[in-house]
Amino acid sequence: MNANPETMTSDVTAYMQKLGEQARAASRAIGRAETGQKNAALNAMAERLLVQADVLKKANALDLAAGEEKGLDAALLDRLELTDERIAGMAEGLVQIAALADPVGIISNLAYRPSGIQVGQMRVPLGVIGIIYESRPNVTADAAALCLKSGNAVILRGGSEAIHSNQAIAACIQHGLEVAGLPGEVVQVVETTDRAAVGELIRAKEYVDVIIPRGGKGLIERISNEAEVPVIKHLDGICHVYIDNEADNGKALKVAFNSKTQRYGTCNTMETLLVSESADLAILKELAAMYAEKGVELRGCEKTRAALKDSGVEILAATEEDWATEYLAPILSIKTVASMDEAIEHINRYSSQHTESIITENYSKARRFLREVDSSSVMVNASTRFADGFEYGLGAEIGISTDKLHARGPVGLEGLTSQKYVVLGDGHVRQ
Amino acid sequence: MNANPETMTSDVTAYMQKLGEQARAASRAIGRAETGQKNAALNAMAERLLVQADVLKKANALDLAAGEEKGLDAALLDRLELTDERIAGMAEGLVQIAALADPVGIISNLAYRPSGIQVGQMRVPLGVIGIIYESRPNVTADAAALCLKSGNAVILRGGSEAIHSNQAIAACIQHGLEVAGLPGEVVQVVETTDRAAVGELIRAKEYVDVIIPRGGKGLIERISNEAEVPVIKHLDGICHVYIDNEADNGKALKVAFNSKTQRYGTCNTMETLLVSESADLAILKELAAMYAEKGVELRGCEKTRAALKDSGVEILAATEEDWATEYLAPILSIKTVASMDEAIEHINRYSSQHTESIITENYSKARRFLREVDSSSVMVNASTRFADGFEYGLGAEIGISTDKLHARGPVGLEGLTSQKYVVLGDGHVRQ
Repeated sequence: MNANPETMTSDVTAYMQKLGEQARAASRAIGRAETGQKNAALNAMAERLLVQADVLKKANALDLAAGEEKGLDAALLDRLELTDERIAGMAEGLVQIAALADPVGIISNLAYRPSGIQVGQMRVPLGVIGIIYESRPNVTADAAALCLKSGNAVILRGGSEAIHSNQAIAACIQHGLEVAGLPGEVVQVVETTDRAAVGELIRAKEYVDVIIPRGGKGLIERISNEAEVPVIKHLDGICHVYIDNEADNGKALKVAFNSKTQRYGTCNTMETLLVSESADLAILKELAAMYAEKGVELRGCEKTRAALKDSGVEILAATEEDWATEYLAPILSIKTVASMDEAIEHINRYSSQHTESIITENYSKARRFLREVDSSSVMVNASTRFADGFEYGLGAEIGISTDKLHARGPVGLEGLTSQKYVVLGDGHVRQ
Repeated sequence: MNANPETMTSDVTAYMQKLGEQARAASRAIGRAETGQKNAALNAMAERLLVQADVLKKANALDLAAGEEKGLDAALLDRLELTDERIAGMAEGLVQIAALADPVGIISNLAYRPSGIQVGQMRVPLGVIGIIYESRPNVTADAAALCLKSGNAVILRGGSEAIHSNQAIAACIQHGLEVAGLPGEVVQVVETTDRAAVGELIRAKEYVDVIIPRGGKGLIERISNEAEVPVIKHLDGICHVYIDNEADNGKALKVAFNSKTQRYGTCNTMETLLVSESADLAILKELAAMYAEKGVELRGCEKTRAALKDSGVEILAATEEDWATEYLAPILSIKTVASMDEAIEHINRYSSQHTESIITENYSKARRFLREVDSSSVMVNASTRFADGFEYGLGAEIGISTDKLHARGPVGLEGLTSQKYVVLGDGHVRQ
């Protein structure tokens, strides 16, 4: 390792440029690779991961030991750990991605125009994708597989705390590419832990077509602000369930409870419950008791607190900040609203435009809610926890986009592609 | 006008923020407006433009006089001018956009998932669009109409040289919105010619969802580099036609001639002709003679010049720079290549990924060219001049995107929308 920082930085620049050039060249090869060849690579990678399980765990042990020494907290160490079960899960993920339909080359809407030409759109890879992620090593396999299947080359920059694990996984990926006769540069794992590499990657407009950061909000905000390459990003998940006064009580209880408590730390977990003031008060009381029993801390507006006054359930006063907070924890804010209009207004103001659900039996309100709520997923009588690539049938997801351009919501193989126009003529010219 | 520059800038900041807030509020109203109401507004605008033709021409005369005084060149003054014919053209454009199908709210792929929920995607407006353009006043009407029909609010910032014309057109647009009962803030024309307004607009992440610059390459590059809001941009059009050795001579002559000469100044005009060295030499000679007769200056590689040596047609030596130049003029570079592979390599290296066409009767080569050439439009036996929203059946276009994310190629109503997920359940929860 060179001690001169200036030389180091220029080394990183040269190194990242080399990766970029190789990725661009490899993207041409993978862009035109046949589906069967891509699937063969994915299946060979999966097999190799299983065969190499001991090697992976040994590499992982190095990362875990270094992490413990650095004093990483238990949650981080848990995310970092590779067990036999997790390795099998990674391999299974690759096999599943191999089984998905290949989006590349699908031509849609090919039709004759009055001029005599045929015009349609062909689905094509984006080119080179840069993925920046934190401690989970399984992202290395998942992300590589999704990019490869969608015909893209990928440059992976994982967290420095997982460097040995990531390189061991990368070796299995390389093996799979080789077995299938694909260039190894289709999937490249950045080997330096120098942070300057991230800066180079997100500014490499010539070599990288899109950056996808996966990790905490801090990471994603920093990358979005500094990137010159377009970013598909996922910020907050401040999700709402609105219980309408025409809700079915049983559905309201099930959905509102599941949306909050099925998992606390996920972006599609409900953070604020909105309840119509004309809704059956019994629902609110029963729900509050269910949350309390589950250990969820409640914070409510004045009306909500008044309604629960004699219920025996404790509910703190919600502050303005609560409405704008993604707890990712067993905490729920509750607001009583006069009408669906007020609910939509609240959502428009505080939601992160991720996922919102209305509980109602009223057809017209359901129809309006679906049209007027501007979030990436809008639901009727369903748990916000369904906002997920697997549940939506994408087969897998690289993340959930909170952007408006290109892709909104769960991003699967199709979100890693674009469409070009194809025109078929027979000597046709413009008049 | 306040002479203190600091006060002026903060005035512009406050003014642009007000426009942004109003646009955001108006975007909610137009996002849920019924199709009929939007069409009524468009038709009323069209009618008003015709009724107000004299008012428009008077306002336009002010701009023309100021432009002459400032010494604008003849081409710029011509683009600026509003004639009866052009006003009628603008009105007709609005009527045509009213007649297009409304993309907003279309739900596709709604299907049951194993969990019992139904999942589909609904087409939704982007929200608030900022358009920055140069001298053509007709863009004011076109862009406003496309944004409105696709359910978006728009902030229009035209060139200062067209300010009176744009405001007169804006008044007709306001009239149309009023007649249809839509808020006037759906379409806002920036009234200050202060350049700081552009800077504010392209950084207004809170209020503006996407910026579309329309104008010369300099404007677009500047805006793309400085914008914090996502930009749908259109840079160069360095388009290629490749005449394969299995081309039909008649089609090759027609398409290659039309691609260059039907119009010189458009982005979909061919700038470089690639010819297979095994192609019939007679085609090259005949084409060169046709170009020469039309007044097109030819610049060729050595092989091409050698092939034309005794033809009597003058052809200069092409430099490296020629292959990377968008002439937008009666100049054509010609390169002789050994094979389609060399043609594709040349295109990958020099093309701006706009539009490329192969002339061939060979099925396998056509199939490969369509798949492997990574441009927004890829053609077989058709003139590059077809790369256009009207020709493709989009009805109208706001521009041609050379980006890879979101929209590639001509951008019509659909390109001004995105898709959100809709989920329909009956009390369904995640297991």
